This record gives sequence, structure tokens and C-alpha cells, in this order.
Amino acid sequence: MTSEATSSSGSTDPARTGNLSNCNANSFILEAGWVITMDAHMRVLREYSLVVIDGRIVACAPWLDAMTQYPDLIVVDRRSGILMPGLVNAHTHLAMNLLRGFADDKPLKTWLEQHVWPTEAAYLSPAYVRDGTALALAECLLCGVTTVNDMYFFPDVTAATVLSAGMRATVGLIVLDIPTAWAGSVDEYISRGLSVHDTLRDEPLITTAFAPHAPYTVSREPLERIATLSAELDVPVHMHVHETAEEVQSFEREHGMRPIARLDEIGLLNSSLLAVHLTQLTDAEIVRLGEAGVNAIHCPESNLKLASGVSPIADLIAAGVNIAVGTDGAASNNDLDLLGELRTASFLAKVFSDNAATLPAAQALRMVTIDAAKALGLAEHIGSLEVGKAADCIIIEPGLGMLPIYDVLAQVIYTQSSQYVTDVWVAGKQLLQHRQLLTMDTDKIRHSAQTWAAKISK
Amino acid sequence: MTSEATSSSGSTDPARTGNLSNCNANSFILEAGWVITMDAHMRVLREYSLVVIDGRIVACAPWLDAMTQYPDLIVVDRRSGILMPGLVNAHTHLAMNLLRGFADDKPLKTWLEQHVWPTEAAYLSPAYVRDGTALALAECLLCGVTTVNDMYFFPDVTAATVLSAGMRATVGLIVLDIPTAWAGSVDEYISRGLSVHDTLRDEPLITTAFAPHAPYTVSREPLERIATLSAELDVPVHMHVHETAEEVQSFEREHGMRPIARLDEIGLLNSSLLAVHLTQLTDAEIVRLGEAGVNAIHCPESNLKLASGVSPIADLIAAGVNIAVGTDGAASNNDLDLLGELRTASFLAKVFSDNAATLPAAQALRMVTIDAAKALGLAEHIGSLEVGKAADCIIIEPGLGMLPIYDVLAQVIYTQSSQYVTDVWVAGKQLLQHRQLLTMDTDKIRHSAQTWAAKISK
Repeated sequence: MTSEATSSSGSTDPARTGNLSNCNANSFILEAGWVITMDAHMRVLREYSLVVIDGRIVACAPWLDAMTQYPDLIVVDRRSGILMPGLVNAHTHLAMNLLRGFADDKPLKTWLEQHVWPTEAAYLSPAYVRDGTALALAECLLCGVTTVNDMYFFPDVTAATVLSAGMRATVGLIVLDIPTAWAGSVDEYISRGLSVHDTLRDEPLITTAFAPHAPYTVSREPLERIATLSAELDVPVHMHVHETAEEVQSFEREHGMRPIARLDEIGLLNSSLLAVHLTQLTDAEIVRLGEAGVNAIHCPESNLKLASGVSPIADLIAAGVNIAVGTDGAASNNDLDLLGELRTASFLAKVFSDNAATLPAAQALRMVTIDAAKALGLAEHIGSLEVGKAADCIIIEPGLGMLPIYDVLAQVIYTQSSQYVTDVWVAGKQLLQHRQLLTMDTDKIRHSAQTWAAKISK
Repeated sequence: MTSEATSSSGSTDPARTGNLSNCNANSFILEAGWVITMDAHMRVLREYSLVVIDGRIVACAPWLDAMTQYPDLIVVDRRSGILMPGLVNAHTHLAMNLLRGFADDKPLKTWLEQHVWPTEAAYLSPAYVRDGTALALAECLLCGVTTVNDMYFFPDVTAATVLSAGMRATVGLIVLDIPTAWAGSVDEYISRGLSVHDTLRDEPLITTAFAPHAPYTVSREPLERIATLSAELDVPVHMHVHETAEEVQSFEREHGMRPIARLDEIGLLNSSLLAVHLTQLTDAEIVRLGEAGVNAIHCPESNLKLASGVSPIADLIAAGVNIAVGTDGAASNNDLDLLGELRTASFLAKVFSDNAATLPAAQALRMVTIDAAKALGLAEHIGSLEVGKAADCIIIEPGLGMLPIYDVLAQVIYTQSSQYVTDVWVAGKQLLQHRQLLTMDTDKIRHSAQTWAAKISK
């Protein structure tokens, strides 16, 4: 046994040791004060270790047992910390971090049409996507997010940036009726998307989703092709659906039906659909989404900030809809703090259902872990700390603002806990250590963010 | 001039230097990248210094000018930071930090009657108030809060703990119909309160407010006495008003009028009233509150978490009501992050008014600075960075999650900025330095929080 005592100097980094035969960078024993497993029994274990070999979880056992059973593994001591699965942010536009705070206090239509789209038209490029995505991923790691479901242009660049950071992502193969720097036509969006899908097929940390922007920006014919391709290739469909009242009303005026009815007609309402926002729903639509097995992606803070509305998630839960939570892009949030987003989601669900018991802590936490993994089709690999799954996990060291601890789940959700995330691993590789990023250059990211802002502000 | 370059080692602490005649602990030049003044013109200055002598602001000038004009003062270099007024948390129950996470996901009535009140009955004591308040104040400083408006038992202990931390507070002289460890009768609540008021009269950092708990827990006669005393002594009245629908309805059944009508009858609706919560208001009540000059204290997160409702602050603003924001106690929030609370307040105001332009960043920030100071009757002394006021100020060093910066006000409010508060001064005395508490013992506070929780959990 090689035990390394905890210290703030970083000496427990398994990546920096590894002189034993059975000890590579992705094999170690991780000791924690609490282990929030997010397994089917929602077990929370006190004074347990996670045993990781070659990036996979092979055991979860009391401290002493783990050391006895795996004497050759190095020990990472986080005995005062809370260990839990890495978080899954189910809706991002990572590169839009470069527009954080660029145009606040504006409704969605004005914000998109007068500010975001013209700026993107002027600056969108692989470099823009690379730098914005890097800024966002650094923020994600510092908030305990290990997996993102992203939708943006140049998904190949997004994937490369995610891989360089060592993270996990579902990258969206975006489709729009209007041309951009990424593609000049619907055909080109789809063909470039399929080519990205093929290139990334063997990357263990990356999956893809078709990402038609929204029913009001992608016409019927490409949506039909996407429905077919999604079924053939078993690839999810990630789409904004019923984000604002105005968008639903104008669609209805033009097409004589609501967007969800159109999606149903096309065959897109199924368990492969990740329907984002859903702030405008009739009772019948809620029932239909439940029957069809659609996944709802709830982005409460963006919906509040743009005054789009509030998704009726208590009703969606009652209808059996699987729900994941996303931050949306930082330009309409303005942060990627997923645990903070979940807190907002829980609070809103309580007040809108007139019941403080709605969406209690444990149920809420599923929406950024196991239920989010399910939505992305990744529940066999991530979303809970169970034997056989990848070691995507984080440590939260309870700060003063989380004390005292009566119920660790409640403290993780109802306090600003993400600021206390100290360590992050993806597939057993450590990416954050004592709040220091190990795979990204913080100074370079800061500098490039300010350089882009200076250019854009001109 | 004694210039000390910035460093993370803490060498710029003026309290640790001071070998020059004109340089005491509370006199220094504080250089910042941005100065958010919160003055009448809402000026935001780039590359300015605040000049502080004997704890008061004597000038605000460009970096070079300040050094030239005050060559004998030491210089605290926070050139990459955002300098702004210390924040004012307008409604707290500090000692309740010990019950953070003790009973979540329950509505107000159950939460109070079955969980909080029985526990308080069992454990309430001066030691409980001291330890809970210390935990809360440490959290406040780490969130940039320098002034609190508190309501709890043993306000003498609260005041002593605040003074020991070097902070500023309005302590509530609580009154209830039911007896507690603090007082056995309404008469005793009032007499003990007056005695605390007299004792603290000459403390520059402490003021008092009468704090009758609520119209449904304090009967008419003591409220009448408090109305008279408030006018005679020029002391504000801090009270929960219309927090839940149930409380309003049951009052109406019992008394044939709504609580606000009762307060109006008694003469309590005036500019000395700090009316907390106000989630249940008729249009006529909103108009009346505006006419009467009442101050509304908005606590959105507690109201959401207990499913109490949402205060119609866009309408209150339109009626001319002065609004401050509070976190409420950590047992119903569950944190004291005031900037996070303000973000929630702004988001809710937007969605409930169906307008993303409602409560823009600059207006929102007034509610935790100058408008909150106004509500407490302290606007001559604090709430903005202006010559003649006390040097209650904080530094936020923009983290990755705040970048890039287009509009510094928006980034302070719409991102999780409180985690980046690095330094805090009250009346020119530094209380937080590079996120280290200078006047409080962190280890002792952590230990006592866990000790109390262990006792209470039994």
C-alpha cells in the first residue's frame, strides 16, 4: 500500500506517482467522508472509499477494507470531503461563454436577433469556438461538471477542445435553415454533421446528437431526415422546443398547429428526443410527452432571465417524463454553475406547485447525475458511482457556508456548494486538484477571453 | 508613499504596517480596476483609488492622483479587482445558521411548528446565539456582506458577536406573545429590548430596530406600544408581514381584516417600517405601502423554498416602495449569499413581469447597497462609496466564471460572483484578506457548528 496523506500541496495526485506495477494514473483508492452514490437505492455511505482501476470503478468499500483488499493502489485522502458522481450539464452552448454579459436585460427575440446573431455572424470561426469552449470547460470543471450536452457551430472544434481538457461530451450536430460560417445550407449542415459523427465514432469520451435548433428555425423536410437518421444511427435529437410563448404562437399562426404537434407528426416525439426548455405546455402536451418517453431538459435560469416562462416540471414528473437540468449558454444565464441551477429548479418547482415538499433534495440531484445520463443514453457508463461504471467523480470539501451538516444531500443542493468543488476526475483521470486545473492553461484562457471581448466590443 | 505591491501572501494588509505617522490601521489608499460607487449617478470608475483616513472615505481619484495627493498613506494594490460598497443583508436570523439543513422540503407552518420552534425551545441560550451568529457572520464576510439587519433572541449576544467580528448591524429587539428563554412575557421582551437599545446607544457600528415577529404572533396592544416607542426613539420596526397566504387568511378569519389593515390602523405603516416578505398583496395594499413610504424587504429564496409565494416587486417598485433584499435565515434558504439572492430576485422579477428588461443590473444592485442602507436609516453613513461615508467596502477579483467583462455591473449580479470576494473592510478596518478571516477563528467556528449539530441531531 502506498498511502499519501492529504495535503494542500497536491502530493496526492495519482498522476504524479505511479511507481508501482499496479498503479497507473487512472488507478487509485479515493477515500471520502461521504459517498453519494446516486445508485438505485440512493445510498449515501459514510467513510467509504471508491476503488478505481484503469479508470473504472471496481469497488466501493469502507476505508480500511479498501486498503486491505487493494494494497498496491495509491490512496487519495479526501476523508473530510463529499464524493459524488461528476455532474452532467444537459444543455450548453459552450462557445457562447465569450458573450457572457454582452447583452443583458433583454427578451429572447431582441437578444437573439439584434445582439447574439449579428455578433456571431461577424466573429464565428473555429478559433472563436475553441476559445469560448475552453473558457466554458474550465468553468465547468470548477463547478464539478464532467459531461456536457452541447449545441453549437463547429462541433468538431468543440469535440477537440473537450478531448484536450479530458472531459466527456455529447456534441450536437447543429442544423439550421439559415447559413452560417459552419454550413451554407441544410444539406451541408447534415453532411458536415454526419462526417463529424463518423470521425468521433471511436472516441470513448465523445458521443453525438443531432441538434436541429428549433421547430421555428428548421423546416419540416430536414426534420424528417433527422428523424430517420436518428433512428438508423441510434443518435439522440437535441432541440429547443417551446421556449417562448411568442415562438409557439407565431408557429401556430403560420402552420396551423403547435410545434410539438409538428414534431409528433414527424415522429420525433420519442425517447431519443432531448426537448429543451418546454416553458409553454398544455395539459395534453404534458401527457403526450410522458407517453412518448421524451426527455425534458430544464433550464430554469435562462428561462427566468429572458422572461421566457417557467417549465411545469412538477407536472412533467407526474406524467413520467425523465428530466435533466442544463444551464443553457452563459450568455443568457450568466454562469455554468449546474448545482446552482438545480437549486433554482427545486425552488421554482416548490413555489409553482404550492408545495415545499415538491422536488426534494435527493430527487433533484438525479436530474444532474443519473437521470441526465439516462437522457443522453449514457446511464450504463456514468451518472452514479457503481461498480463497472467509469470513474467520473468529484469531491466537495464542505466550506463554512455548508455547515453544519445534518443531511449531506440537502447541503449539496441548497447551499452554494459548487464553489467548494476541489477535485474532479473523468474516467479516472484527474482534471482538477485542490481547485487547480491540471489539463487547461488558466492564464491563456483568461487572456483569450478578454482579447475576444475587446474585439467584439469595438 | 509606502507602496506595497499586491501579492497573495497578504503583505498588503495595512493593519500589519503602519510605521508612518499618518498611517494607522484604518488609513490607506485602495487601488482597484473598477470602482462601483453606487452614488446618485451610478458611476463606475476605471483604475481609481479610494482614499481612506481614519476609516472614512476622503477621496476617490485616479491611481496616480491618489498616490500624489496622499504620499504618506500605504497603498493596497487590488488593481485587477472590482471595488464596491459592502453589502447590506436586510433580513437575517443569524443564529439560525445552526439549523441550516436541519429540516428541508417542508412548508413554513410545519417547518416552524414541528421542527424549528421545538428545537429552539430545547436549545436556545446565549451560547447557542453566540455560536450560530459567529458561523453566520463568517459566511457573511466571505460573501461580501458587511451589514446585517438581524432578528433573533438574545440581541445583546448578537451585538457582542457582531462587534467582536468588527462588522456592522441593526439588531432586532424581538417581541412575541409567547415566552422563550429570552423573555417570559410581552412586557419583558419590550423592557429587555429597551435595555439592549440603551446599552448599545453609543456603539458606532450597531443600531437597533424593534422586531415584533409578525402580526399573527404579536397582539394588538404590544404593537401599539411599539408604534409609540418607534416614533419617540426614532427606531425602525422590523417585522414579517404577509409571508404566506395561510397566515393572511387565518388572520382575516380571526380579526375580520388583513394584517396590513391592522398595521395601518395602529399607525405602523410608515417609513420606519421594514416589512419583510410581502408575498401576498392586493393592488390596493401595494398602492398604500407606496403612499405610506414603507420599506419592503424581499427574501425571494426563502419564499420559494418554503413555497410561500413570490413578492410582486416590479409592482412595488412602480408604486414607489423602497426595496431591500435579505436572505432570511440559513435554515430556510440555505445560505447567506446575498449576491446570489439578488440574482434570484432579478430573475423572478423579470419572469413575473413578463419582461426581461425589468430590474436591470444597476437597479438591482441598489437593493443590497444604497437602498438597503436607506431602509435601515443608515444611508448617510454607508451604502455607497462617497466622500464622507464610512469605508465599508469589498473587493471582488473576477474569476474565470465572471469572464469576459463587458459590463462589470452585470457580471457582479448575474454570475456567482460572491465566491470571488477576496477582501472586506468595515469602517476602514480589514476583516477579510485574500479570503482569510482576520477577526474570526475559522477552526473554532467549524468545530462549534458540528458540535451543536451533533447535540441537536440526537
